Amino acid sequence: MTPVTSGVFAAALTPLHEDLSPDHALFARHCRWLLDNGCDGLSILGTTGEANSFSREERAEILERLLSGGIPAGRLLPGTGCCAIPDTVALTRHAVVHGVAGVLVLPPFYYKGVSDDGLFAAYSEVIERVGDGRLRVYLYHFPQMAGVPLGHRLIERLLRRYPGIVAGMKDSSGDLQGMIATARAFPGFRVLAGSDECLLPLLREGGSGCITAVGNVAAALAAKVVKAHAAGDGAAAETAQSRLNAVRAAVSAHPLSAALKEIMAGHSGVESWRAIRPPLVRLTTAEAAALASALDRIAFTPPPLG
Amino acid sequence: MTPVTSGVFAAALTPLHEDLSPDHALFARHCRWLLDNGCDGLSILGTTGEANSFSREERAEILERLLSGGIPAGRLLPGTGCCAIPDTVALTRHAVVHGVAGVLVLPPFYYKGVSDDGLFAAYSEVIERVGDGRLRVYLYHFPQMAGVPLGHRLIERLLRRYPGIVAGMKDSSGDLQGMIATARAFPGFRVLAGSDECLLPLLREGGSGCITAVGNVAAALAAKVVKAHAAGDGAAAETAQSRLNAVRAAVSAHPLSAALKEIMAGHSGVESWRAIRPPLVRLTTAEAAALASALDRIAFTPPPLG
Repeated sequence: MTPVTSGVFAAALTPLHEDLSPDHALFARHCRWLLDNGCDGLSILGTTGEANSFSREERAEILERLLSGGIPAGRLLPGTGCCAIPDTVALTRHAVVHGVAGVLVLPPFYYKGVSDDGLFAAYSEVIERVGDGRLRVYLYHFPQMAGVPLGHRLIERLLRRYPGIVAGMKDSSGDLQGMIATARAFPGFRVLAGSDECLLPLLREGGSGCITAVGNVAAALAAKVVKAHAAGDGAAAETAQSRLNAVRAAVSAHPLSAALKEIMAGHSGVESWRAIRPPLVRLTTAEAAALASALDRIAFTPPPLG
Repeated sequence: MTPVTSGVFAAALTPLHEDLSPDHALFARHCRWLLDNGCDGLSILGTTGEANSFSREERAEILERLLSGGIPAGRLLPGTGCCAIPDTVALTRHAVVHGVAGVLVLPPFYYKGVSDDGLFAAYSEVIERVGDGRLRVYLYHFPQMAGVPLGHRLIERLLRRYPGIVAGMKDSSGDLQGMIATARAFPGFRVLAGSDECLLPLLREGGSGCITAVGNVAAALAAKVVKAHAAGDGAAAETAQSRLNAVRAAVSAHPLSAALKEIMAGHSGVESWRAIRPPLVRLTTAEAAALASALDRIAFTPPPLG
């Protein structure tokens, strides 16, 4: 199977047990369901998946257990970017050895206001130390959360130095014009929208797809957008995009991971779906009710569980 | 020896070898020199010390090697706050078992805009899981870098739930009025300024001292401030504070860790003092020259090396 490089990715939630340890079996079931319902690939252990709330050992085990649970490595784009380069190197190497399609790499995100030289050195250290031709790096641009933006000069320099290895970027900035500019500036570099509402507009301007939190429940809608766009059916693409935007609007009135875990708990009847690691917290009863009402108003339910 | 709880702390630099591995022997010499030249205690593995650029294993080893190098644990306030609670728990427990005076704990700093409930849960999980009466937690408030401010409602709640354990706060916000308000609101809770220029004004309003990057080269000046203030000699305290401010102004024209490593390299003749982990970078030759000139203009040199 060719490793996935574009299309619809869910930024997969990581289900936990009530004691906050990862629920590996439920995670494998969730990922299988996502692949059966619109996802071309899965971006596991990203922001939505609480990656940075897990230790390096937990992150490695989450990937291993997912693979042994039957999810193909070639569909996976795990997040491996940590603050400390030795951690990023270890997780990236581990993921590559296990055959993943690529890795999504945050810049070191503790220090703010760092230079392009420093960011280039950080990515460079990781790529050189991993030293594996199979490595495919997707940069993770999320200035609002990481506090460390990734600009065109950095991308250009990385592409020149590591062609074929530096493969694309997830852009979670919400800035559609910026995503379009990146896709135009670097042909062949895959720009994936981190915001559902940017999917169709970005596809029209050379973007490669999306990686979104809402994909945990509504990837089928994103898949319709991609399919209709590819078939040249602009009207159908618009319709699916509008519907996807409505789901996004309902969910994003709340913190995303907690809201999506709430939806999955309600949908599956599995109470522990609500478990979330601090500093994130579950939705309150009132918030959960408001979310349920908002989804009712647009008559949205996730696809049936397998 | 009574564990240190107040006074002058350097936010100690972590010297590296040219291959970016920690130079344990040089670190022990640096810390000994700091304790011999004005420091009451050492805040190791904080922002200045590049803590988040080291793996958990490296951080544990840095502490262990420092202790075996002869630095007393009761003088140390290591940083142990990570994004992932299991990491924070492991490092905190390790530090407590080794007898440190206390630990400086960043909130989980990846997610932004988190609630007080989430921050309380995060600190609470750490304290409960470490479960050791010897634990002394100093909260680390550095909104500009961590992106996660710690407010009075959180402090109040933690103090009520964990009296004796939650011991104080390093306030690196630069907001003197905020530090004073915290010191007044919570008597007995030790507020330590993260900015040199706040030292004397904060001491006058009930603060407990400072933890600063500039303490790596100018702790003797901070010690003069504290001593003169304690002796009721306001004029001498002001004079030392002004001098300290001048050093701070010269150094903080540049990124702090790189600037201070540059000063130590020049002062010691040890070229590898300049080594720094990405995403931080060394000063350029021009920046280093500007820094040297600025320090020359105020006729500042660090104390002689032992």
